[in-house]
Amino acid sequence: MMTSPSHSPGNALRRLRQTTPLVHNITNHVAMTPTANTLLAIGASPLMAHAQQEIQEISAISAALSINIGTLSPSWIEAMQLAAMCAHRDGKPWVLDPVGIGASSLRQYACRALLEYRPSVIRANASEVLALAGEMNQGRGVDSGDDGEDALERASRAAITLARAQNCVVAMTGHVDVVTDGQRQITIQGGHALMGRVTAMGCALSSVVAAFLAASLDGHDDTLQATAAALACYAEAGETAGQSVEGPGSFVPRFLDALYTLDADSTLLASRLELTDVT
Amino acid sequence: MMTSPSHSPGNALRRLRQTTPLVHNITNHVAMTPTANTLLAIGASPLMAHAQQEIQEISAISAALSINIGTLSPSWIEAMQLAAMCAHRDGKPWVLDPVGIGASSLRQYACRALLEYRPSVIRANASEVLALAGEMNQGRGVDSGDDGEDALERASRAAITLARAQNCVVAMTGHVDVVTDGQRQITIQGGHALMGRVTAMGCALSSVVAAFLAASLDGHDDTLQATAAALACYAEAGETAGQSVEGPGSFVPRFLDALYTLDADSTLLASRLELTDVT
Amino acid sequence: MMTSPSHSPGNALRRLRQTTPLVHNITNHVAMTPTANTLLAIGASPLMAHAQQEIQEISAISAALSINIGTLSPSWIEAMQLAAMCAHRDGKPWVLDPVGIGASSLRQYACRALLEYRPSVIRANASEVLALAGEMNQGRGVDSGDDGEDALERASRAAITLARAQNCVVAMTGHVDVVTDGQRQITIQGGHALMGRVTAMGCALSSVVAAFLAASLDGHDDTLQATAAALACYAEAGETAGQSVEGPGSFVPRFLDALYTLDADSTLLASRLELTDVT
Repeated sequence: MMTSPSHSPGNALRRLRQTTPLVHNITNHVAMTPTANTLLAIGASPLMAHAQQEIQEISAISAALSINIGTLSPSWIEAMQLAAMCAHRDGKPWVLDPVGIGASSLRQYACRALLEYRPSVIRANASEVLALAGEMNQGRGVDSGDDGEDALERASRAAITLARAQNCVVAMTGHVDVVTDGQRQITIQGGHALMGRVTAMGCALSSVVAAFLAASLDGHDDTLQATAAALACYAEAGETAGQSVEGPGSFVPRFLDALYTLDADSTLLASRLELTDVT
Repeated sequence: MMTSPSHSPGNALRRLRQTTPLVHNITNHVAMTPTANTLLAIGASPLMAHAQQEIQEISAISAALSINIGTLSPSWIEAMQLAAMCAHRDGKPWVLDPVGIGASSLRQYACRALLEYRPSVIRANASEVLALAGEMNQGRGVDSGDDGEDALERASRAAITLARAQNCVVAMTGHVDVVTDGQRQITIQGGHALMGRVTAMGCALSSVVAAFLAASLDGHDDTLQATAAALACYAEAGETAGQSVEGPGSFVPRFLDALYTLDADSTLLASRLELTDVT
Repeated sequence: MMTSPSHSPGNALRRLRQTTPLVHNITNHVAMTPTANTLLAIGASPLMAHAQQEIQEISAISAALSINIGTLSPSWIEAMQLAAMCAHRDGKPWVLDPVGIGASSLRQYACRALLEYRPSVIRANASEVLALAGEMNQGRGVDSGDDGEDALERASRAAITLARAQNCVVAMTGHVDVVTDGQRQITIQGGHALMGRVTAMGCALSSVVAAFLAASLDGHDDTLQATAAALACYAEAGETAGQSVEGPGSFVPRFLDALYTLDADSTLLASRLELTDVT
């Protein structure tokens, strides 16, 4: 689907492995270990830090930032704001994961505060995209699609609305992944049903997107392309890991192995993507 | 052992998988990821949150609560109190895991504060039950059994004492599990020795008990029966996972797979339970 | 390499398994679960606690302490100081892991504050040893080796400098491990390249060193020997786990299995060590 072979997911993966970008993560307590292992498996370098006293220095050495609003506390929100502020100021890519935004006002508060610093990508599932788009619209409209409308289609429309409102890329992941910058939309096929039975798969993916953004800083891919490449690699590894696995326990080590051994020359990777114009 | 087939552990498991109850966990830093993966594997939905600003809303959408006192801090204790207060007020089941209560005054303080809000179930190992029962008795008596008395028997008596004093169910897990409401006692056979060489197996079980309580809210099982069902499923999965495994590392993925593939129709499940009247 | 057979790594491992020492860990959020599982697999007993209100009591029941400065916050630094203060006061062994010390002033501040309490061992990688030795020298000299000098040799010299300045053992781990007390140096061969693609392998090793120190308290091994024994066991388990593994995901369970099944009678263990006089 890409306009030239150099924009293939395989090339993006190759660049990531060559540059091993340092990704600063402020993520939830559940996702800490899985996120670090996922970044290491695909070839990036993870760093977790949430003390306000070190945010500026950590930001200075990091190539990208990933923020996830699970297991919040007020002091963590302050650290997230400082980190996002640094990334925005310095032009570094950063990803917002509004996990469980529908669950509480505190999470909505945190997201609104963080959106001030213009995330490069919002990575979320369909219900989080709907909640966030509704939040932006102050509760009007987003949930009011025709009853006959397909759930994925309604969520995709919300993703486009959100991407336009925030002037960012929205990566909505689930059974099928949809990535949009408000003008273009890429769908990605792949993955495995067991990914929904393993914790922090989505959270870790947000950090993988950040790593791909960092690896594309030299203008190789734009944000939409780099995000789609990250999702294609994840989908491919998930599909590989899911073959002949017995449950979510054995899925995890196989998934990390699949990320580690992912073939950047695989023609499957690019074929997972389908581009549509949505202007 | 159950009074009717509808009270079988298999039926309880079936209801859990059908209802996928949302369990709010405030647990220790070590147990976060394993607990989430365990709940997902058996069919429940995990949520971790400890910010006081979101406790009330999180409680409102949760079907049950699980609190574990490992890796405490004063602000986490306050959040635990608020969550237990909400559960108690709204009549939602909640489980207290007094992990390592013998290790410090702070853990004893936290437990005493939390017991104000009447947990449905206390899930602990034998030494924690002894410490907690002793704490309730202000240090008198519990440890003073006949020297000839069997350790398990002494701990079982402490569990009954604790259940009566707190008017709750006590689930004491170990080589053999003992569950009691002070009048009835159910013993559960199964599990595997390697479960003692894997971190957070007990902590995650406390949250699984909470999930079973949530799935029994419609009066299918009482608290004792629902707790015993949770322990029977855990024991069965542990026994299955332990077969032909080489160590605690390979045990973990197999255990999660075994929870995921656990057969609700297995006749083994009910046969693990043995009911005794202890009035 | 040891002066008598009783100082073999195998004997140290045997004592650890017999005594199952309780190790108090204040470690980073990423390393919590892996560290607990690693300690359990090798035969020690893990305890995590960071509340200032319980540090003194936790210290009193612990046989050793392991402190890791990842994912700091000011209140955690205070807890670390109190724990190190207790260990130093009571003559209990403790290990400092200055993870990522080069990344921020806060980490350097924390290390300097903790060094007041005289760690028994500093466990770090080469760049952390160089940063810490430079920090001690207020930035002079450490990085100024001849351009022709080998990187490992330069880092080894920094380790010796650091060991002498701090009057402690420095365990510098990587492709080859180097342990020194400033007079003697032991190199340890083994491990596997995948250990660099799994999070918290070094952090968990720091706690394993603490467990070996605790198991040698009766004067069986000195600190240098006990540290070398820990590293030899880790190297052996890593090499075993790396055989025929497909990636970092499947490496983890196999590594824990390998620690669990490690043969204390293996003649390989002692042969991994090579002693040099560096006075």
